[in-house]
Amino acid sequence: MRERLYLYDTTLRDGQQTQGVQFSVAEKQKIAKALDALGVDYIEGGWPGANPTDSGFFDTVAPTRATMAAFGMTKRAGRSAENDDVLAAVLNARTAAVCLVGKTHDFHVTAALGIGLEENVENIRASVAHCVAEGREAIFDAEHFFDGYAANPDYALDCLRAARDAGARWMVLCDTNGGTLPDRIAEVVRAVIAAGIPGERLGIHTHNDTETAVAGSLAAVEAGARQIQGTLNGLGERCGNANLVSLLPTLLLKEPFASLYETGVTDDALSTLTQVSRMLDDVLNRVPLKQLPYVGASAFAHKAGLHASAILKDPTTYEHVAPERVGNARFIPMSNQAGQSNLRRRLMEAGIEVSPGDPALARILETVKSREAEGYAYDTAQASFELLARAELGQAAEFFEVKRYRVTVERRKNKYDRMVSLSEAVVVVKINGEKRLSVSESMDETGADRGPLNALAKALAKDLGPYQEIIDDMRLVDFKVRITQGGTEAVTRVIIDSADGQGRRWSTVGVSANIVDASFEALLDAVRWKLARDAGQVAAAAE
Amino acid sequence: MRERLYLYDTTLRDGQQTQGVQFSVAEKQKIAKALDALGVDYIEGGWPGANPTDSGFFDTVAPTRATMAAFGMTKRAGRSAENDDVLAAVLNARTAAVCLVGKTHDFHVTAALGIGLEENVENIRASVAHCVAEGREAIFDAEHFFDGYAANPDYALDCLRAARDAGARWMVLCDTNGGTLPDRIAEVVRAVIAAGIPGERLGIHTHNDTETAVAGSLAAVEAGARQIQGTLNGLGERCGNANLVSLLPTLLLKEPFASLYETGVTDDALSTLTQVSRMLDDVLNRVPLKQLPYVGASAFAHKAGLHASAILKDPTTYEHVAPERVGNARFIPMSNQAGQSNLRRRLMEAGIEVSPGDPALARILETVKSREAEGYAYDTAQASFELLARAELGQAAEFFEVKRYRVTVERRKNKYDRMVSLSEAVVVVKINGEKRLSVSESMDETGADRGPLNALAKALAKDLGPYQEIIDDMRLVDFKVRITQGGTEAVTRVIIDSADGQGRRWSTVGVSANIVDASFEALLDAVRWKLARDAGQVAAAAE
Repeated sequence: MRERLYLYDTTLRDGQQTQGVQFSVAEKQKIAKALDALGVDYIEGGWPGANPTDSGFFDTVAPTRATMAAFGMTKRAGRSAENDDVLAAVLNARTAAVCLVGKTHDFHVTAALGIGLEENVENIRASVAHCVAEGREAIFDAEHFFDGYAANPDYALDCLRAARDAGARWMVLCDTNGGTLPDRIAEVVRAVIAAGIPGERLGIHTHNDTETAVAGSLAAVEAGARQIQGTLNGLGERCGNANLVSLLPTLLLKEPFASLYETGVTDDALSTLTQVSRMLDDVLNRVPLKQLPYVGASAFAHKAGLHASAILKDPTTYEHVAPERVGNARFIPMSNQAGQSNLRRRLMEAGIEVSPGDPALARILETVKSREAEGYAYDTAQASFELLARAELGQAAEFFEVKRYRVTVERRKNKYDRMVSLSEAVVVVKINGEKRLSVSESMDETGADRGPLNALAKALAKDLGPYQEIIDDMRLVDFKVRITQGGTEAVTRVIIDSADGQGRRWSTVGVSANIVDASFEALLDAVRWKLARDAGQVAAAAE
Repeated sequence: MRERLYLYDTTLRDGQQTQGVQFSVAEKQKIAKALDALGVDYIEGGWPGANPTDSGFFDTVAPTRATMAAFGMTKRAGRSAENDDVLAAVLNARTAAVCLVGKTHDFHVTAALGIGLEENVENIRASVAHCVAEGREAIFDAEHFFDGYAANPDYALDCLRAARDAGARWMVLCDTNGGTLPDRIAEVVRAVIAAGIPGERLGIHTHNDTETAVAGSLAAVEAGARQIQGTLNGLGERCGNANLVSLLPTLLLKEPFASLYETGVTDDALSTLTQVSRMLDDVLNRVPLKQLPYVGASAFAHKAGLHASAILKDPTTYEHVAPERVGNARFIPMSNQAGQSNLRRRLMEAGIEVSPGDPALARILETVKSREAEGYAYDTAQASFELLARAELGQAAEFFEVKRYRVTVERRKNKYDRMVSLSEAVVVVKINGEKRLSVSESMDETGADRGPLNALAKALAKDLGPYQEIIDDMRLVDFKVRITQGGTEAVTRVIIDSADGQGRRWSTVGVSANIVDASFEALLDAVRWKLARDAGQVAAAAE
């Protein structure tokens, strides 16, 4: 018989304290829906009355399976719970659960609130009792509990007891400043339980200021706490809250947790976790972090050659859980550490058959290594890697030859005395013995200058004779520039992502001290990869 | 009497396993220098013989106070340690320490290596003995130790004993797959010590696959291990290694660690930690993560209104350590009252006096906000920020006007039928009513093309009349390009770092869809800041 653990998500409240994060009502609704589908037990939606967005969310949110919680603070001194307008606004959100933060550290009571210690205990008691009387599930967030317990354990415990006796369903121990390490958290949780607050009514709320928020939550559970508060992707004030996206798979898939506890999250829901994490980044318009545990694009990427070859034999050799359990996927990138088996696998994925032991494999690895030393990055630019491999294998088609190009960037005052800039590119190619000159400028439909690389890309793709139809089908979707050595005398690496009408996406790389040259090289690879892939069609069309 | 903990950095080896990370020799040297100044005990530089970069690094690295370690693997079966060419390449790097990885999980020995269990133990013994005979400090990296210990504890321990008896200084317990949780790590470390491997010869090497790598390292130390392996910013395979940047302040500043242990890192060195962390991101051309514990820009940012006002009364109310201890700073967002006094302080630091309540303060905040929405980044480009503030305050001097510029990039075959490229830039400025035309090309002393931005920078600085002497004193020291929106239609942000003969360094920013334009804007700001700072001299010289 496994014990039940309760998951309490505060992405919409504490997560919103993240620097630069400000959810709209629609975004909050989208996130609440995803949390509900995931199967968390509580969704803390915000602080009603504190700002229009939070109030708007509670007014419009669709019913959820999870218990919806409104956040607020215990009543202020000098008025009754019934007459505190801040508390009234929280209750007016009409959520099934109400979570009230209150002070438990004596120093904060006297220094920040400036009230008496007994008065604060009474504020906690009366506020919780009022919520219970109003028919709500009351949750008491014990602010600064661990610092408070260190300074004055009796007082900190008195605050918890007041909430417990007033009928709070949960007493949540908050490590507000994020400075408490996991062993200490476990020690304090055990002491609190020994002092008469039952573990099945204890929650844990940690922050990541020492990079141990997840471990601190796990330590609290092992010590007896049964509610975990956290956020998606570890959003939150300063360094963030405990990351539920990391905690969930550990609780469900790893021992001793999987055997001892159960949650409201099913295996099916867990397999959508990567998607939920990326959805949040999408809402925030952030690039998902590759290194995120379980759900990052690198979480199951095996770069080291020795690892990659073992993974091919048995994935458990270098994976502690199966990526599909959390909706993620294995990835074996190309790099200068890659072994030959990794290389063969990459080539096979690209439709290039090579027998084991083919001397071309060693040549390809050599070329990759020496070019990566110059600044190329083939683990990101798979398409350039394929072209390189085809060249070493003698399978590269030339298609066309670039004779020369020229790009001009000018900036001057126009006749209205405004500074305007314009770029122009000329590209000269030879196809089947025939010379073709193309010229393009950098202006887009709105008349804005999009720069020299835009002009160059357009000129290169403008007239490729028999290949024109294929090339018309492709477009550039992303462009990344990185200086790989300091100084203006640096080497520039350009990575270009392209896509086509068949839904394919590919990446190419160029390196040069001259940024225009590096871009042109990556552009050229992008066009050549598309032609290499679709060459069969062209040959057929030519007949 | 505090016990000594040893810090072993593997940023240059395991950190390089990060997807998308490929250091050049120069970058490795820069990072090694920073690690040495920080005071780590060991710097693992790479795997000599595995690729040209790692070999090149060991051939050229300057002497360090830290012990330099070369990484490799134990000898292969069927040959002697003396005749193993892979091991020979590692020893040929001539480092004081040699770290050899070997298998300790029986399943990996039989499934991945395909050799007998005894043979593997003998490979470990002979390899370590060979390193010791060659006069090196030998370190044994026990791969998959925790999984191996779970499957077959006797065998895993036999592998450690073989290394110990052959004279290895350290036996490092590696949680290679990153799946072992902190409590289990502590339990196994205690068992290993009980089995006769002394804690003062035990190291810990964790990975962040469950987001508990830092906590796992701390748990191992509490259980008796005395060497910690990790990387800067937690770089490393998959989800990364234990983050030394998070571990260091916890070990030095927080209990029980600060009282029990000492490291080679001084308080002064610790106060450069933020700088070291940002340096690594700079090398990687990554935007530093704001949420990073201790060193992130948000680590001491107080967004919540209640927190911000309490912080103004007493910083310990919401900070678990003082930000200056790790070289970081408190941040109170500009959007509130505290923001304005923050801004005034920043301006005063730049020698710009503004009275409290001056309406220009609100205007500056507005302009910063709207320009940052366009892609500008004034946190990094302090000099551009100063120019912006001076403009809003009506204190900006014009010095000269740029009438126009033109840059041409050409690539064509030369008379020897080799592709060559060349850039040329023309800049036209007006100074005191007089027009001056300058032209430069991109060739450096060696005849190599350094690209259009180089030509443009040279042309701009070539003839600035009365200001020429001041400008001759400045040089560009770094150049960073970032695309801030996807697509070729992206906006490009260019940050330029400049320095002068007075030892000053300043950063400027330019943003445009046209990369040449963005660069020119940043170049122009760099020149104007220098003139604004040294204008007094010019005026004096003109009299």
